[in-house]
Formats: sequence, structure tokens, C-alpha cells
Amino acid sequence: MSASTLTIAAPADFHVHLRQGTFSELLTKHVKLGGFGLAYVMPNLQPPILNTEEALLYKSQLQAIDPTVEYMMTLYLSPELTPDEIRKASAAGIAGVKSYPRGVTTNSEGGIESYEAYYPVFAAMQEEDMVLNLHGEVPSCSETNTCVLNAEPTFLPHLRKLHATFPKLRIVLEHATTRAAVECVKSLGDTVACTITPHHLALIVDDWAGQAFNFCKPVAKYPDDRQALRDVIKEGHPRFFLGSDSAPHPPNKKSTATPSQACAAGVYTSPILLPLVAHLLESFGALDKLEAFVSTNGRAFYKKPARPGLEVTLRRTKKKIDEVWAQGQDSVVPFWAGKELDWEIISA
Amino acid sequence: MSASTLTIAAPADFHVHLRQGTFSELLTKHVKLGGFGLAYVMPNLQPPILNTEEALLYKSQLQAIDPTVEYMMTLYLSPELTPDEIRKASAAGIAGVKSYPRGVTTNSEGGIESYEAYYPVFAAMQEEDMVLNLHGEVPSCSETNTCVLNAEPTFLPHLRKLHATFPKLRIVLEHATTRAAVECVKSLGDTVACTITPHHLALIVDDWAGQAFNFCKPVAKYPDDRQALRDVIKEGHPRFFLGSDSAPHPPNKKSTATPSQACAAGVYTSPILLPLVAHLLESFGALDKLEAFVSTNGRAFYKKPARPGLEVTLRRTKKKIDEVWAQGQDSVVPFWAGKELDWEIISA
Repeated sequence: MSASTLTIAAPADFHVHLRQGTFSELLTKHVKLGGFGLAYVMPNLQPPILNTEEALLYKSQLQAIDPTVEYMMTLYLSPELTPDEIRKASAAGIAGVKSYPRGVTTNSEGGIESYEAYYPVFAAMQEEDMVLNLHGEVPSCSETNTCVLNAEPTFLPHLRKLHATFPKLRIVLEHATTRAAVECVKSLGDTVACTITPHHLALIVDDWAGQAFNFCKPVAKYPDDRQALRDVIKEGHPRFFLGSDSAPHPPNKKSTATPSQACAAGVYTSPILLPLVAHLLESFGALDKLEAFVSTNGRAFYKKPARPGLEVTLRRTKKKIDEVWAQGQDSVVPFWAGKELDWEIISA
Repeated sequence: MSASTLTIAAPADFHVHLRQGTFSELLTKHVKLGGFGLAYVMPNLQPPILNTEEALLYKSQLQAIDPTVEYMMTLYLSPELTPDEIRKASAAGIAGVKSYPRGVTTNSEGGIESYEAYYPVFAAMQEEDMVLNLHGEVPSCSETNTCVLNAEPTFLPHLRKLHATFPKLRIVLEHATTRAAVECVKSLGDTVACTITPHHLALIVDDWAGQAFNFCKPVAKYPDDRQALRDVIKEGHPRFFLGSDSAPHPPNKKSTATPSQACAAGVYTSPILLPLVAHLLESFGALDKLEAFVSTNGRAFYKKPARPGLEVTLRRTKKKIDEVWAQGQDSVVPFWAGKELDWEIISA
């Protein structure tokens, strides 16, 4: 395809971290800047978003920063979440619940250890047609040879069991990174979908070895795993769509200052998101699937059809990615800082 | 074992990087400080050590810094190395030749791409009873699904072929990190040995994910790979011995400053080496194999029997590892900086 412009209907990012406080004021504006009018917002704040009231307060804070974006809210799965709270959340328009395994990513110390205890909550979610978002990794454990490389494949039996137990519950396996995850989701029913990040379309393990700005959880894995992510987009599978997992950290948290302080996990893509995804999909011959991947597929799964007037147009160009984005005391370094993208947004 | 002191005959480190210039003045003294009287010195300087003359010059520089250590020298395998040069090197007491695959570690841009061209050199080495030291990794290649995680297993057929072609050539597979490598070396003849580093006895992939001070090449891998390294020491296999691969870099090279600059690969253990190895071996029940691992096995393979008077005694203690070692403008951060070791050297 050699079109010089592309118009995409209503891009929607179904997994994004917008943080809190002044940092959030910098980041939230980047959703629209990156070409997106809908943000499915993760609840792993400090403290996490545990109930309807907290989610609505957070939503109002985000709306105060940029009222032009539609924010879809999630609750953090925890023991204090009840079927009653699920019904209340659903009535208030909260779209989903996010499950974090304990200790595997940013602010997940309160994450879950086993799912059975949450079955009443999942049953209520199924009734209410809410979405369960899974960070699909198990904690590392040397005794069972589990580490960051196989934490996702080792999680997949939990996904299979949840789907078998709650076949009508809509489930999203978030930020898939392995061929095993892609094949598992494809094998399951229409209520199971999967998000893919742009950085996992670009990176393999070699790229984050010694390079903190490419380090995120789940970690990027083998070349063959990356190929599986590219292939499932290229084939146009309707249950795979964009969730950027754009996860900002201040630059000083991304640099390994001392042997006792590891750097934060996360790759930041929000302000360049649509041009980056176009660039990546074109690199592996899937530019014709751009609208399906960034809009149609996810909106269909979440029952949020595109409204007219939210189209975004891209123009072919050579545009260097900014080295840093800053506002006041806050700053963040984007993925591929200083590299050139082949597309830029000309209208949103 | 609950002995409060341990005396080890003539510890020998069969893989160490002593660098150049003022940095070398800091590092070279750490060999003896870490309890070692013999250092098998790697040739990957800038420019690399390509011939006898350069190796002897480098050796004299190291002797000028600390004449109490025995330095065994190696040449960097390159197209300019000839059978004549091998005979000359052997006559001058140079012990081995180190092969680096192209681009896989520090200063390996001039590394080899295929071994057949070097068969005349290897034949001369076999005649002269010199040792071939292999950095046993192939370069990453997405098309073949090769990356830093499987670069070592993918190299092993080269080792098997070299051993089959030159059965009397002594070969050391350096810094093994995988169960596959351990099993391969065990399956081969008595002319094939293997070094193991202390940090690969401690680390798995999770430990260097986002932590540059634990990042080295080959990268630490799965828990089961680490277990294989521990087990082969615990079983007392005579062809497995210590090569620390102590690889210093200035602290600013270990920190990821920008997205375009990855950090240097290498873990630095020299100044704490013998106490660290004792601590690690005790942690997995192999303290009774300490002398075999750090002295007897390697010295037997290299035909460098321990001389009396080189014993080193360790005392049980709780000793914190220094945060940094410095001299003049040079500094280096050791492995496990700030952590406590259970042993210290009381006489050397």
C-alpha cells in the first residue's frame, strides 16, 4: 500500500495507564495527541481503584484534564469487591474489572493469588455483561522453573478454566507476548479477546537486555513470539486489538542507578500511538488492518461502536519522535525516542 | 558443614577481564584481593590481543601492577592468526586462544563467523597442546528465532563438531549458562571442559530484567538452567571449574541513560571472588566442592598444578560487600554491592 493519507474511524486504546496527580495532567493530554478518542483506563494507582466511587472520582479527574476523550473505567480485582459492588459499578457505567497476579507489575502487590474465591464476583460480572481484564502472568517461582519468560504460557490454563466456567463472561487477555497466548485465545470462544501492544510488535528479549527504556512487563520474548503477534494482526483476526499498555515512568525511574534499585517496568507510547502503530503494521505488511486493529475489533468486543466525527487522518512523512515530554516538574521519555516514524497525524 | 575456617590450595580464576590503562591498575590488584594467585586473562581489549608480541606486552603491564599473580595469556582468534604464530605463541608460554562470535559481547566486533577457516590454526594448537576457549553463543537472528536466550544451546553443535574434528584439542566452553550446555560438555571427551561463573550460580533472567548491574552476556536464564550449573558442581564433576568472567565497566556505562544507549554487559566479582564462591556453594550444599571448583579441577585441565605456599584461608563471618571500588578517576561497582557474604579471607 502506498497511500499518502489514511483515515481511521474513531481509534480506541483498550489498555492505558494515566497515573495520578500532576503526572496525570501531562499524560492524559497525550491520549488525544496520539490520535485516540477513547481510553480504557487501568486501575493500578496508589492506592488502587477498588470501588465504584473511586472509579467515578478518577474519571472526573481525567475529564477535567481533557474532556474530549471518552474514559472507560475499570476496578482493581481485590477481596473487597463484592457481587453487589459489581452491580453498582455496572449501573454507573464502569466497563470492567482488572486482575493482577500478585507482584508481577507496577503496583500489583495487592494482586490475586487464586481465582476460585472470586467466582461470585465473576458470576455477577457475567450477569451484568462486564469485562474481565487479565494480566496473564503467574508469579515467578524457581521451584517450578517459572520466571518472566514463561509466566504467560504458565498462566494460560487459568484463562481456559475461567472461560469454561464462565462461558458468557467477556474476558480480555491483556498485552499478549507469546505464540502460546495467541494460539490459546484463538482456540477459545467469541467471549475471549486479546490486546496487543505496539512495543511487543517491535521488541524481542535482546532489545530490553541492558536497555531499560525497552523493559516492560510482560517482557518481550523470542522472535517467534513476536512473529505470532504480527501474524494474528495480519490475518485480521477479529478478537485481537490494540491495548497500548502505555505505561509512563519518570526518566530517573527508568535508569538503573544502583545495584539495589531496579528500574521500573513500562514502555510509553501514548503521544505517538496511532502513527507508531501505522508504522509498525506497515513494516510487516498489515497496514490494511490498521482500522480493524486500532478501532473496529476492540469497539465491537466492548460494544462501543464508532460514532461519526471521530475520524483521524494520517499522512505519510518522516517525523522524528520527541526525546522527552515534559510539563512542570514531570517528564517522560517515549518509546523509540529520537527515531523516525513514517506517519503523522494531520487531523483528529 | 559448619567449619569456621577453610583453607583452599591455590585458587585459580580461569576467565577474567583485566582491561587496560588506569582502569587496569585498579582491577588487576583485585585478583589477589579476591583470593586468587592465577588469572587466565581474556584478550578482548581495544584493539584486541592478536599475536604473541601483544600478549607478552600486556602480560608485562599486568606484572608491573601486581607481580605476585601468575598471568596466563590468550590470543584473540582472528584471520591474522596463523599456524606459525600459534607455534611462536606456544613457545612463549601463551596458554590459549579465545574465540568470540561476532558482536555478541564486549569488543567482539571482530569475532568469528565460521570455524572451518580456522582449522589449520586449530590443528597447530592441537599439536602444541594449546587450549581453545569458546564464547559459546551464536549471533541473534530473528529469521531463525535465535536470540540471547537460545544463543548458547544453538552454539553447541559447533562445539560437538570441533571436538569430533580435533579430539585431542583441549577446549573450554566458557561461562556456561544452560542445562543444555552442561549436558553437552558432560557427554564429550576428557579434552572438553567448561567454566562456570559465580553470578550464573546466583542469577536468573528475572534478576537482570530492569537491573543493569546483573546484566551480562551470556544472560542468566531459567531457574532450571541455574539448577543444572549448581548440580554439576555439587556432583563434583572434574571438567567443570571456576572462570569468574569478572567483567568490569565504569558505573556510568552500567546505567541506562538514554533510549539510544544500552548499558554494558558484565558483572564484576574479582575483589570478592573467593568469599562469594564459598557463600554460593554453601547456599546449595556444595561447600565441600569449593577446592575442586576453584582450584583442583581447573589446574588439572590446564596442567598448572598447585604449588605449596599459595593456600588461602577463609573465615566464617558476616561481611558487607563494598558499594564501589575506586582509584583516581576510575571506579567499578561489584556484584551484590551492599549485600552480606558469609565468608572473608583471613590469609592469602
